[in-house]
Amino acid sequence: MAGNSFGQLFRVTTFGESHGKALGGIIDGCPAGIELDLERIQLDLNRRKPGQSSIVTQRKEPDTVEIYSGIFEGKTTGTPIGFAIHNTNQKSKDYSHIKDSYRPSHADYVYDRKYGFRDYRGGGRSSARETASRVVAGAIAKQFLHGVQINAFVSQVGGMKLDKPYQELDFSKIESNAVRCPDTEMAQKMEDYIKSIKKEGDTIGGVITCVIQNVPVGLGEPVFDKLHAKLGEAMLSINAVKGFEYGSGFAGVAMKGSEHNDAYNADGTTKTNRSGGVQGGISNGMDIYFNVAFKPVATVLQSYETINKDGEKVITQGKGRHDPCVVPRAVPIVEAMAAMVLADYSLLARTNKI
Amino acid sequence: MAGNSFGQLFRVTTFGESHGKALGGIIDGCPAGIELDLERIQLDLNRRKPGQSSIVTQRKEPDTVEIYSGIFEGKTTGTPIGFAIHNTNQKSKDYSHIKDSYRPSHADYVYDRKYGFRDYRGGGRSSARETASRVVAGAIAKQFLHGVQINAFVSQVGGMKLDKPYQELDFSKIESNAVRCPDTEMAQKMEDYIKSIKKEGDTIGGVITCVIQNVPVGLGEPVFDKLHAKLGEAMLSINAVKGFEYGSGFAGVAMKGSEHNDAYNADGTTKTNRSGGVQGGISNGMDIYFNVAFKPVATVLQSYETINKDGEKVITQGKGRHDPCVVPRAVPIVEAMAAMVLADYSLLARTNKI
Amino acid sequence: MAGNSFGQLFRVTTFGESHGKALGGIIDGCPAGIELDLERIQLDLNRRKPGQSSIVTQRKEPDTVEIYSGIFEGKTTGTPIGFAIHNTNQKSKDYSHIKDSYRPSHADYVYDRKYGFRDYRGGGRSSARETASRVVAGAIAKQFLHGVQINAFVSQVGGMKLDKPYQELDFSKIESNAVRCPDTEMAQKMEDYIKSIKKEGDTIGGVITCVIQNVPVGLGEPVFDKLHAKLGEAMLSINAVKGFEYGSGFAGVAMKGSEHNDAYNADGTTKTNRSGGVQGGISNGMDIYFNVAFKPVATVLQSYETINKDGEKVITQGKGRHDPCVVPRAVPIVEAMAAMVLADYSLLARTNKI
Amino acid sequence: MAGNSFGQLFRVTTFGESHGKALGGIIDGCPAGIELDLERIQLDLNRRKPGQSSIVTQRKEPDTVEIYSGIFEGKTTGTPIGFAIHNTNQKSKDYSHIKDSYRPSHADYVYDRKYGFRDYRGGGRSSARETASRVVAGAIAKQFLHGVQINAFVSQVGGMKLDKPYQELDFSKIESNAVRCPDTEMAQKMEDYIKSIKKEGDTIGGVITCVIQNVPVGLGEPVFDKLHAKLGEAMLSINAVKGFEYGSGFAGVAMKGSEHNDAYNADGTTKTNRSGGVQGGISNGMDIYFNVAFKPVATVLQSYETINKDGEKVITQGKGRHDPCVVPRAVPIVEAMAAMVLADYSLLARTNKI
Repeated sequence: MAGNSFGQLFRVTTFGESHGKALGGIIDGCPAGIELDLERIQLDLNRRKPGQSSIVTQRKEPDTVEIYSGIFEGKTTGTPIGFAIHNTNQKSKDYSHIKDSYRPSHADYVYDRKYGFRDYRGGGRSSARETASRVVAGAIAKQFLHGVQINAFVSQVGGMKLDKPYQELDFSKIESNAVRCPDTEMAQKMEDYIKSIKKEGDTIGGVITCVIQNVPVGLGEPVFDKLHAKLGEAMLSINAVKGFEYGSGFAGVAMKGSEHNDAYNADGTTKTNRSGGVQGGISNGMDIYFNVAFKPVATVLQSYETINKDGEKVITQGKGRHDPCVVPRAVPIVEAMAAMVLADYSLLARTNKI
Repeated sequence: MAGNSFGQLFRVTTFGESHGKALGGIIDGCPAGIELDLERIQLDLNRRKPGQSSIVTQRKEPDTVEIYSGIFEGKTTGTPIGFAIHNTNQKSKDYSHIKDSYRPSHADYVYDRKYGFRDYRGGGRSSARETASRVVAGAIAKQFLHGVQINAFVSQVGGMKLDKPYQELDFSKIESNAVRCPDTEMAQKMEDYIKSIKKEGDTIGGVITCVIQNVPVGLGEPVFDKLHAKLGEAMLSINAVKGFEYGSGFAGVAMKGSEHNDAYNADGTTKTNRSGGVQGGISNGMDIYFNVAFKPVATVLQSYETINKDGEKVITQGKGRHDPCVVPRAVPIVEAMAAMVLADYSLLARTNKI
Repeated sequence: MAGNSFGQLFRVTTFGESHGKALGGIIDGCPAGIELDLERIQLDLNRRKPGQSSIVTQRKEPDTVEIYSGIFEGKTTGTPIGFAIHNTNQKSKDYSHIKDSYRPSHADYVYDRKYGFRDYRGGGRSSARETASRVVAGAIAKQFLHGVQINAFVSQVGGMKLDKPYQELDFSKIESNAVRCPDTEMAQKMEDYIKSIKKEGDTIGGVITCVIQNVPVGLGEPVFDKLHAKLGEAMLSINAVKGFEYGSGFAGVAMKGSEHNDAYNADGTTKTNRSGGVQGGISNGMDIYFNVAFKPVATVLQSYETINKDGEKVITQGKGRHDPCVVPRAVPIVEAMAAMVLADYSLLARTNKI
Repeated sequence: MAGNSFGQLFRVTTFGESHGKALGGIIDGCPAGIELDLERIQLDLNRRKPGQSSIVTQRKEPDTVEIYSGIFEGKTTGTPIGFAIHNTNQKSKDYSHIKDSYRPSHADYVYDRKYGFRDYRGGGRSSARETASRVVAGAIAKQFLHGVQINAFVSQVGGMKLDKPYQELDFSKIESNAVRCPDTEMAQKMEDYIKSIKKEGDTIGGVITCVIQNVPVGLGEPVFDKLHAKLGEAMLSINAVKGFEYGSGFAGVAMKGSEHNDAYNADGTTKTNRSGGVQGGISNGMDIYFNVAFKPVATVLQSYETINKDGEKVITQGKGRHDPCVVPRAVPIVEAMAAMVLADYSLLARTNKI
């Protein structure tokens, strides 16, 4: 209820603050019998972790996950998987300057108003550091979703937009560059741009596109819990996300029904895929694809004016170790959330019929 | 779990098919002591009901709601509010032609695959007729949310886009025209355009913008259940929706952090509102605003080719009574879902502190 | 959350007050493809309905259920099953005398304190009339649980206790008498006793025993949601229930482990069944059996002293149409709740393994 | 859903196996602003921990809890409280003899059938070691429930029953003896009896009574989620529990309504309290009291015959470190579960009225 859980049958609950002792979580409902490759979990964590390249935050965290339960002789047992990632590189002192003041477009003010006070160190619970736990859960969900391919990548940074249909991209190139854009030429431009933004002490937004292939027909529930509604909720729950669209998305608005409709092939596949792999909230077996918009990171390394708890004006200098652009590190988070949604609906789909 | 409920503390569960005996629902968790104005519920139903103007479906349904429980001497009692809307104008025969074939971009095919068979009359449960129940629940939620103003309106039809900031619009004009666009000049153009589309037997998409004012600070939960994530899920659960963005949305991607950040006034309000009234998933007291993209209705009154259950090609003529553009009738649905989300989080916010 | 739903995957939500327009509910998550025998639903309702014999309340209600959705061509569709039972024999005037006073051992006082006021007619939502909706849901759950046999019966009335092991009883005799005790001799004694209690204007308690046979191995979850914990919760949620025990129950306390343990046969069945069909919260395939204790009905048709809203002493005469002993009519309710629990866990058990 | 969570607004999720690396959990929904006394948490853990006296298991575990999040400057922050208890004294080798065979009246067989295999070390997830996490959560719930007194104690061991009304007992004596019975004379007899049972290599059952005082009026929900139904579920979810009764319980069955009813005093309290502090599922401000029946521990240190995975007969010698009687250590577990239920309903009660 307090919103630290996601999913119903494949249910993930996370805990942990940016500068606390540890982050972690519990995965409840993961079916028994999955042979877990623990290295693949760590691999996804490494894709998200700070300090991996020059265009991301330089906080040094190994982000090593410890699994406490739910696995025996290499396989999931059906009991809850508890895990933790210990924080090692907290520099809480970096944050004493914001103890009593509110950083613009951060959650400082609303936390104080909602809870009466807050753990101000590094944003506390509102920090995107929480998403490390999601990546662990997502990496396990991916292994459960044997055969389903989930590929997310950066398709826009600032005004720079990759305008190719995903079918023309080579997903194997995503990890070949620091930006995680599968078009290496565009990736280079984006990287240069992020570096120039960073030099200004500023930040910039971006878009992540996600493509999910080999999804079975029938995932998703017809009314409130439509598959794309839950995917949308999942993506919007990631820090800094401002928008979600799937299939034809916002552009589909301007089309006529006769143009927009996806005609059927004899085998139930469709000739076009403006539906984005979902019809009436239920997967139809075609590729699911969607875009996720991220705003520019709020922490700029510039001087700015804001207020303190007493409503007095204060001048502050942005500092700390921050990302100039969040999308390169958010790619595995988008994948993780998508995997969690699909795992949940895959289990639920087992209950549809007698 | 099967997805026919929405909300946790203010929890709405709906039932009913397009051409069954009745639609309806149960609202559980509505606090005791609300003096309910039943006419306002019916009024919202009338805004959604078919046959209200020449640019919507001509199915004739009075959509009269009967309330069975949960109200005593004009006030909510704290016990569940059960209600039903009886269907009176079913023309099931209209649908015998689709019994064995799959309409493109409809849920026919996925229902058959998911459940083994389907109630094919009028789309059954996948019909937007289900949203009548949501409007009832939303109208009750609105009365609970005393003081909060929720105004949705049509801001785009096809390529025609209302490019004014919402602050310049007069919301009292929304109901003055069939399109539900507060700019009466633009409304006329949109209406003419929808009529021309209808004449072609075709359909067109649109965008609804929703503005929520006077929201208290502190609604929303920090991690998975961010306020905007739940609003997004709510909107994406409405039939035909393809996208959701709030605050700066997709356009915010191209901004720098130094431009995008909302500076504080001394009283905790912000000078700009690119955050869209939500920071870190929690309402900050500023206006919440968002856009919802609707695709063109899939049923076109034209001849088209599709497949039947056996994968054989069939030529069908679209018929029945359908909307050429769904957004005018979807305005009260968007409001209803927004009200349900806010009611839920308002109750939850009572539990944050000792 | 407000407690009008039961179950997670097979989820039942009910509404309705004793003297409102209608009672009813929604079953969400019932799998598609069950051929429903509607007469069997009505039959269970008839076993619960008032006026069926001289030892139960004489309120005359046909208790006819109307099903609004979720069934098509005789089969469940996988979409929610909405239903209502219209009240026809409300005599609200019977209750004007309790409008401002609190009947002892009824919920009048706590409702007023919890909600600020109450629908006082016939106990409103706290009336056991609500359980009619549970019987509908349970009757559908039973049909889903094809092959599982659920038999509840009266095993004690006041101090009169049927002291035979259930294996020696003939369940086909349960419906042969008004008390619903399968031992016809004992049934006669119980009936005579209830009649004498009724003549005094008094009431008496009783025990219902329930035996569930042919349960598959593996239903129930290991920690908080143990199968017997959920059965216990289900039974304790029935009006007037004061206790629950399964297997060896309270008597098992006095046994030694070496006596109490159930030794295995080669096929995994056990030689004895003190476990009551559940080990570690999970069904082991043996018969599940349990006892449910019901207190005497609080409404006695005698004069009594109580207080009104202002804390003033008032003398009241109990009146209305009430049961002298609740257990004969509660038999189908116990079965219904058991069926709902088993249906829920049957669906959940499909998700245990890859 | 997989049953490792308890509560809705004050929600506890646990993980961990008997012989895994660590046990632990997450408390989500604990309100902000509680000044937590961490020593009181450890104190309750110590009351549950093994090795505390000669009549409990001699496994040596310090059971030291580490709290990872959700607390800042001594107070709860409103964010999830993650915690772990590291196992230090696992002797997994003790269990190699049961790897392939099924101990009678244990969960070994059903786990294998449900999940396909199991972590057999010390019962894995089915071990009562899991309840250490509940005690942590309960100890925090108790601190939230400022002013409410929860006292559980042993009222029966085998056939030895403490037959005094709880009002005549001195709760301050509960911790004065190893059995946790407030009547020191009876406690001595019980202790001697348990020692004699232990000497035989056998085990014995018992009853724990729990009394909750100073409960506000209005906790509990009227229909399925009655306060006593949830208390019953909570208690039945504890390992080895076979029965639950509250207020007049099973004995109330034999009373007449005119005797059983609790007459009101002018202030809304009642002269008697057969209702056990709950009417219609809602607390009425009187003392809540209930009994919980525990069966004898299944592991006896004797030789016994059972079957292995292939259904072959095997003769085994019970070994390991086990409790001859579980009730002394279960006292803090009963209190913890009661506290969790009350904390949950206390939060929910904030949402009843406008």
